[in-house]
Amino acid sequence: MTLRVSVVGASGYVGGELLRLLLWHPEVAVIQATSGRNAGRYLHQVHPNLRGRSKVQFVHPDRLEPCDLLFLALPHGEAAQAIERYAGLAPRLIDCSADFRLRDPAVYARWYREEHPAPAWLDRFVYGLPEVSREALRGVNYASGVGCNATATNLALLPLVQAGLVDEQRPVIVEIKVGSSEGGATSSESSHHPERAGAVRSFAPVGHRHTAEVEMVTGLTNVHLSVTSVELVRGALATAHVFANRPVTEKDLWQAYRAFAATQPFVRIVKERQGIYRYPEPKILAGSNFADIGFTLDETTGRIVSICALDNLMKGAAGSAVQCMNLMAGFVETEGLDFPGLHPI
Amino acid sequence: MTLRVSVVGASGYVGGELLRLLLWHPEVAVIQATSGRNAGRYLHQVHPNLRGRSKVQFVHPDRLEPCDLLFLALPHGEAAQAIERYAGLAPRLIDCSADFRLRDPAVYARWYREEHPAPAWLDRFVYGLPEVSREALRGVNYASGVGCNATATNLALLPLVQAGLVDEQRPVIVEIKVGSSEGGATSSESSHHPERAGAVRSFAPVGHRHTAEVEMVTGLTNVHLSVTSVELVRGALATAHVFANRPVTEKDLWQAYRAFAATQPFVRIVKERQGIYRYPEPKILAGSNFADIGFTLDETTGRIVSICALDNLMKGAAGSAVQCMNLMAGFVETEGLDFPGLHPI
Amino acid sequence: MTLRVSVVGASGYVGGELLRLLLWHPEVAVIQATSGRNAGRYLHQVHPNLRGRSKVQFVHPDRLEPCDLLFLALPHGEAAQAIERYAGLAPRLIDCSADFRLRDPAVYARWYREEHPAPAWLDRFVYGLPEVSREALRGVNYASGVGCNATATNLALLPLVQAGLVDEQRPVIVEIKVGSSEGGATSSESSHHPERAGAVRSFAPVGHRHTAEVEMVTGLTNVHLSVTSVELVRGALATAHVFANRPVTEKDLWQAYRAFAATQPFVRIVKERQGIYRYPEPKILAGSNFADIGFTLDETTGRIVSICALDNLMKGAAGSAVQCMNLMAGFVETEGLDFPGLHPI
Amino acid sequence: MTLRVSVVGASGYVGGELLRLLLWHPEVAVIQATSGRNAGRYLHQVHPNLRGRSKVQFVHPDRLEPCDLLFLALPHGEAAQAIERYAGLAPRLIDCSADFRLRDPAVYARWYREEHPAPAWLDRFVYGLPEVSREALRGVNYASGVGCNATATNLALLPLVQAGLVDEQRPVIVEIKVGSSEGGATSSESSHHPERAGAVRSFAPVGHRHTAEVEMVTGLTNVHLSVTSVELVRGALATAHVFANRPVTEKDLWQAYRAFAATQPFVRIVKERQGIYRYPEPKILAGSNFADIGFTLDETTGRIVSICALDNLMKGAAGSAVQCMNLMAGFVETEGLDFPGLHPI
Repeated sequence: MTLRVSVVGASGYVGGELLRLLLWHPEVAVIQATSGRNAGRYLHQVHPNLRGRSKVQFVHPDRLEPCDLLFLALPHGEAAQAIERYAGLAPRLIDCSADFRLRDPAVYARWYREEHPAPAWLDRFVYGLPEVSREALRGVNYASGVGCNATATNLALLPLVQAGLVDEQRPVIVEIKVGSSEGGATSSESSHHPERAGAVRSFAPVGHRHTAEVEMVTGLTNVHLSVTSVELVRGALATAHVFANRPVTEKDLWQAYRAFAATQPFVRIVKERQGIYRYPEPKILAGSNFADIGFTLDETTGRIVSICALDNLMKGAAGSAVQCMNLMAGFVETEGLDFPGLHPI
Repeated sequence: MTLRVSVVGASGYVGGELLRLLLWHPEVAVIQATSGRNAGRYLHQVHPNLRGRSKVQFVHPDRLEPCDLLFLALPHGEAAQAIERYAGLAPRLIDCSADFRLRDPAVYARWYREEHPAPAWLDRFVYGLPEVSREALRGVNYASGVGCNATATNLALLPLVQAGLVDEQRPVIVEIKVGSSEGGATSSESSHHPERAGAVRSFAPVGHRHTAEVEMVTGLTNVHLSVTSVELVRGALATAHVFANRPVTEKDLWQAYRAFAATQPFVRIVKERQGIYRYPEPKILAGSNFADIGFTLDETTGRIVSICALDNLMKGAAGSAVQCMNLMAGFVETEGLDFPGLHPI
Repeated sequence: MTLRVSVVGASGYVGGELLRLLLWHPEVAVIQATSGRNAGRYLHQVHPNLRGRSKVQFVHPDRLEPCDLLFLALPHGEAAQAIERYAGLAPRLIDCSADFRLRDPAVYARWYREEHPAPAWLDRFVYGLPEVSREALRGVNYASGVGCNATATNLALLPLVQAGLVDEQRPVIVEIKVGSSEGGATSSESSHHPERAGAVRSFAPVGHRHTAEVEMVTGLTNVHLSVTSVELVRGALATAHVFANRPVTEKDLWQAYRAFAATQPFVRIVKERQGIYRYPEPKILAGSNFADIGFTLDETTGRIVSICALDNLMKGAAGSAVQCMNLMAGFVETEGLDFPGLHPI
Repeated sequence: MTLRVSVVGASGYVGGELLRLLLWHPEVAVIQATSGRNAGRYLHQVHPNLRGRSKVQFVHPDRLEPCDLLFLALPHGEAAQAIERYAGLAPRLIDCSADFRLRDPAVYARWYREEHPAPAWLDRFVYGLPEVSREALRGVNYASGVGCNATATNLALLPLVQAGLVDEQRPVIVEIKVGSSEGGATSSESSHHPERAGAVRSFAPVGHRHTAEVEMVTGLTNVHLSVTSVELVRGALATAHVFANRPVTEKDLWQAYRAFAATQPFVRIVKERQGIYRYPEPKILAGSNFADIGFTLDETTGRIVSICALDNLMKGAAGSAVQCMNLMAGFVETEGLDFPGLHPI
């Protein structure tokens, strides 16, 4: 039986990517897509790649009707403010914002500098990264989204964390290079093309909010994120510098990464001795739900560099959300997510 | 019954794109992929987006075995030189090169400055653009490929040609802006990133060989191509300047374009009064088989600007080839070609 | 004696480029730079490349004081509205906008769809392209700016026009590929990086206002402009398609181009048989005042392709303006304009 | 009296940049430029930005003649192999390669995996970064070049090192984002535009040879470099993560950075609370000799992020070399190096 879904906040980039995935998903029918500004326009007038696929028009959020599952792709804080309303409209919710990712309201308050507007709901949401909560997501009703940079970082670190290899005495430094779509669909002075093109901009050298998500998922407490914007639209590359807590060989690391990736349909290990693509590369993942992970070891110093590439709008947002939907609704986990990315691009 | 296909010249960009399409095509099994240089390597070691999809390894071209259909994606001239061999290996051939596109050996000789090596074969090949030879392609055994720039130009011009609107006394000027993947997978001084990045390079202001294909398909004789390389990997935009042979209105043009696009599953008309994507834009077509066409009219001067955007590796090469295969083998024409492109990208 | 100059509208891109040129100009002192929005900020807080060079702060336009020469770099229409005020503040004016470029108020009205606010002033301004009005500019008090796309087109066409080679019966089609800085410093939906990056956008396929400037400068009446935005910040490339009015050889064309370039310190002929840079390339002109021109001839059809590359903010705006200043003030024409551009870039 | 200089290895990118600087340098005459492959060609046929400036033609290296000062811009190892010959041709040498940067032959052997071919010469060369060896460079005859990534790293770290703020117990992690010109002028598979464009490529996550230069200049031993290639032609951004050895405030850091920058004509501190350019940004430094440095402090964790941006071909190579020449020859240190970079770009 077809799952009837709607997307709230559908004119943003995550909303558009949800629509692309859902309109081609064999088990799903897209019922409504809301947008305050674009009510009445056809989907393809905002997301031109959808031209010819659907006759759906954006509706004003006030006209949202009941359905089987609601995707919320709203600006920070809006989902939490109106969570009761959304929960009244659909038995299942997947919220792509940061509103329901953290379990601890105190942690939320520290990083987002305000009290959580609906703390009682935090426990009802399962963290929406199947790579860490697959079993908990099966059949559940509420899933959070994931932070794109948090996900790149988490997937870089988890193989080492799960293998117990991280020296927690020494800082874990994670440098994340990101594309401009992370800033969303609204233009600003800093996204003006002549300024943003070719930039290598220190966007968040310290204090990135996704740190909270990384600490929650990995359990690490000595982890430091730094985000730099580079010339790219889609994509993120996390480069994590980890010191091992005991002497390790490359073979040990292969074992750790293989153990982690073995059960993950969208995680691939990329580590080649030759060729151009020796490590994970975000550009070939545009539109794909894969997270590619790789590593290298500095044998002299014991530094492990663990690398994760992904498409911030896919595995870092809409792709993981659809993967969650598949698990929640009992579909095949990979359904609708098989686009492999392009080469060259 | 599954169609058993092989790709000859599979390490190039068109070959890689064919593999991407064929590995996900529900009616097809990829039997072999040949590459002289890469024999023994896995497909994903050359085309990293295919990682995890297939255990096929490149084989040396000498080891090519019989199959149901052969895709030839070879450098200029190689298919024609060995056409008897390939025809002996498979009942069906789709050749992506320029070797079998032109019907007239004299035209071939004029543009390619050499006698055609297998002129007797020219008549056996149907020109592989379903938009102009759909019925002829159904069930046929041999199809040529298409030139990427020729296709962008042809699809820009055909709506006007078929509506009988072109003033042939005045020159038709077509400026085509192209990405770097048109140059193929082999590096050269001129493709070196520091030189090619950000370039606006007059690649072929006159004398472009695809002119022959445009003359053959459109029947026009006063058409002039000019190709400029811009910062882009995939994509081509043809901007055709045509003067009407009688007073026309925008409504007449809408009629002409709609008449042309109505029967074409991969042709969309893009003409919006507002928004960012008012005309066809190649970047949102990366990976897609759509050709978007649009137009505008300078009412003061009677100049019509007709615009076509496409992905040179898809509708301009591998996508059209797979579409031909679908027609030749009796599959649904659009099978395996439903990726809509990405936004943003 | 040092020329005391001020820049009105100094926070825009043309204003910033004027400041860069003037702050390093040996004969000039920058007295004031106005900006409504940025009053009180240091120049480098808006134009970061000027950091460390000047302690000047932007002042509000109302606080503009008398000086020797005023550069006006204002949005369309503003200079004309207040021309009496500016003329009262300085004996010499160089206006970079389109307000005083056209001599004929009727032509202005047709292209800008409004009556000129100060038609009596049109005759007092000399058209600010030294390549066409060098002698008229010497010692004069008022010079207009130039349109960037008009200048690229004019410099592509003038060698042929001056040699009397243009067949005026056949249309002259000019395709201009432009970077994002042509849109100015104010961000918009269409300049948002995820949308603008990698675009090949049909910005003005017909109806470009600079057509008026081209007609005025070249005297041609059958000339048709088309502007396409490509991935580039600075730079414009005009590709002009001209049919000769009599049989011509490449040697005739060399003669025509050499005759034109001989007396122009900032015009270079680029036409090489080998290497990467065979034709004019805008990317290597970033920051330079050169306009590079080149050509090729299709001997079969008589089509001449004439190509001009320039930096739209330099030869297409601020560079030409400073060159005008040099002529008006009796300085060496090339003073302060010797930056050659970078390679690679 | 004009200094007569020649450039050996002048067809590479560093060679080309040296020529650009030297041809406009008021105290210098360029006598010869050598290139094996390009002998007989004009400079502008390789470096198109130099068109119209010089009639010099490349000569074969065997035809190199005596002069006052030789710049060596050769591939790794070549300067050291032939150092006696070069020293016989000119009393002064500036070598841009890595051959004479390290003082200790054992360190050289460890990082370059071969014995130094001319160890006796190591002591005669002064390390060519005026920011660390200005006084030693005055009047000296032999100066080494600098590593581009080493220089970005050193200038990020030196303010903290000189202020005695670095906790050497905790690792210093430096992530350097670099453009494609760092790979030099020779094309390769990995520099092929369709592969390199838009890449975020883990070029040297561990084991970067410039580590040796950083250890030598800063005296730090627990410093770890990681280099990632991004979409950019010129430019490098080093992001250094340093933990303070005692509680520090932002004010302490301002003091440290100001103390370092005060005496350096080409070092600017960039740290703004608002605007787009809050931290050093390499793109606005293209062609400039400035190194911009900035910092931020994570007060919760004591992590200092120190950032340096530069143009790898200028302050990271040719610019520093010309600055050395100025010091060696007794010219004004900043002579010929006043280009401020462009905005926008």
